Amino acid sequence: MGKQERGERSRLSILEAAARVFDVRGFDAASTNEILASTGLTRGALYHHFPSKEAIAAALLAAHSEALVIPEHPVKLQSVIDLTLEFAFRLQRDPVLRASVRLAVEQTSFPRPTTTPYEQSGAAILGLLQQAREQGEILPGVDLKEATSIIIGSFTGMQVMSQVYTNRRDLPERVTVMWRFLLPGLATPGILSHLRVTPAQSRSGEPAEPEPTPLAS
Amino acid sequence: MGKQERGERSRLSILEAAARVFDVRGFDAASTNEILASTGLTRGALYHHFPSKEAIAAALLAAHSEALVIPEHPVKLQSVIDLTLEFAFRLQRDPVLRASVRLAVEQTSFPRPTTTPYEQSGAAILGLLQQAREQGEILPGVDLKEATSIIIGSFTGMQVMSQVYTNRRDLPERVTVMWRFLLPGLATPGILSHLRVTPAQSRSGEPAEPEPTPLAS
Repeated sequence: MGKQERGERSRLSILEAAARVFDVRGFDAASTNEILASTGLTRGALYHHFPSKEAIAAALLAAHSEALVIPEHPVKLQSVIDLTLEFAFRLQRDPVLRASVRLAVEQTSFPRPTTTPYEQSGAAILGLLQQAREQGEILPGVDLKEATSIIIGSFTGMQVMSQVYTNRRDLPERVTVMWRFLLPGLATPGILSHLRVTPAQSRSGEPAEPEPTPLAS
Repeated sequence: MGKQERGERSRLSILEAAARVFDVRGFDAASTNEILASTGLTRGALYHHFPSKEAIAAALLAAHSEALVIPEHPVKLQSVIDLTLEFAFRLQRDPVLRASVRLAVEQTSFPRPTTTPYEQSGAAILGLLQQAREQGEILPGVDLKEATSIIIGSFTGMQVMSQVYTNRRDLPERVTVMWRFLLPGLATPGILSHLRVTPAQSRSGEPAEPEPTPLAS
């Protein structure tokens, strides 16, 4: 393994370790000691790649933005729905994504970058909604920027509540509920009945039983 | 001023100071030194009222729950809307409310109480939606527990985004957008046109500073 490859491996192991620590502790309470502990690297190696805890956090947010994949579907509203369902699925499994969401949501001493994950997802969703409008999928009178804002806002809130109540186990079910309520104010009646608001196919190894809705009692 | 009254005054000044510190720093980063600094009280006085930082946080969450006021309106969906608009208005102005929301939303070392502000607001909203259904305001087929979950989830997300982007200045506008998108999936067409999703007119005539959350119980 060459020097460059070893360097890249070290960098990745720092980012993965940092993601796990940021995810559990948040930015302010995370220590570089704890991040180092699980990597087996020296402090010198850490500072070689990242001059500060802020630099690690910034790299994690950049990784988040690179991970945004727009699902292809001829019905563009379905692409938007699939984007949120895929994001929910990955939030359950990917500590890097969870850490970057926490960095974006919480008030900490970490200075937020000018372009937050909200803006990146927002631009992707707005673009899909504009295509959806051209294809006649959107009700007349709907403001697409407002629609983008309520989709991202609702998803964020469902994500926060699912984290508080079930450590995100019920997040896909909450996203499905969200779409059932948002779509009647967004989609034309003709397209509404064709939209699927549950995950595309049952993914192997996925827990089928969701937690009961905590607001039930 | 009697001894008891002095004691109550000390307790209130600690809670108010703690709310400001929790609001800005969050639970983990808040120090009792900083809380004490603005009260002029001794550490002994602090521990007389609250044995720990956790005890202060628990008292703030209790104050939050007492402050929940359900607006009276013959149209019960309007009561739900007014509840969220009033909450948005108070979040902009009341550090006690902001601190308790932050305590409820963030992942910290503070152990969340079994009954969170989500459940308290959830029970109030579900009760109003049940009355709304009896009055024929709700579309057939709507699951009221799911509706409660999406109302609280969307509000939470709009609140988080408004905090990130504008320090909550645009929160009432975001809540208005939220209702414009949620109501078509919730309200019968007959009632939909009668619902007001912007703050009541009388609000403009009111003084800019409302009463803060009463901390005395």
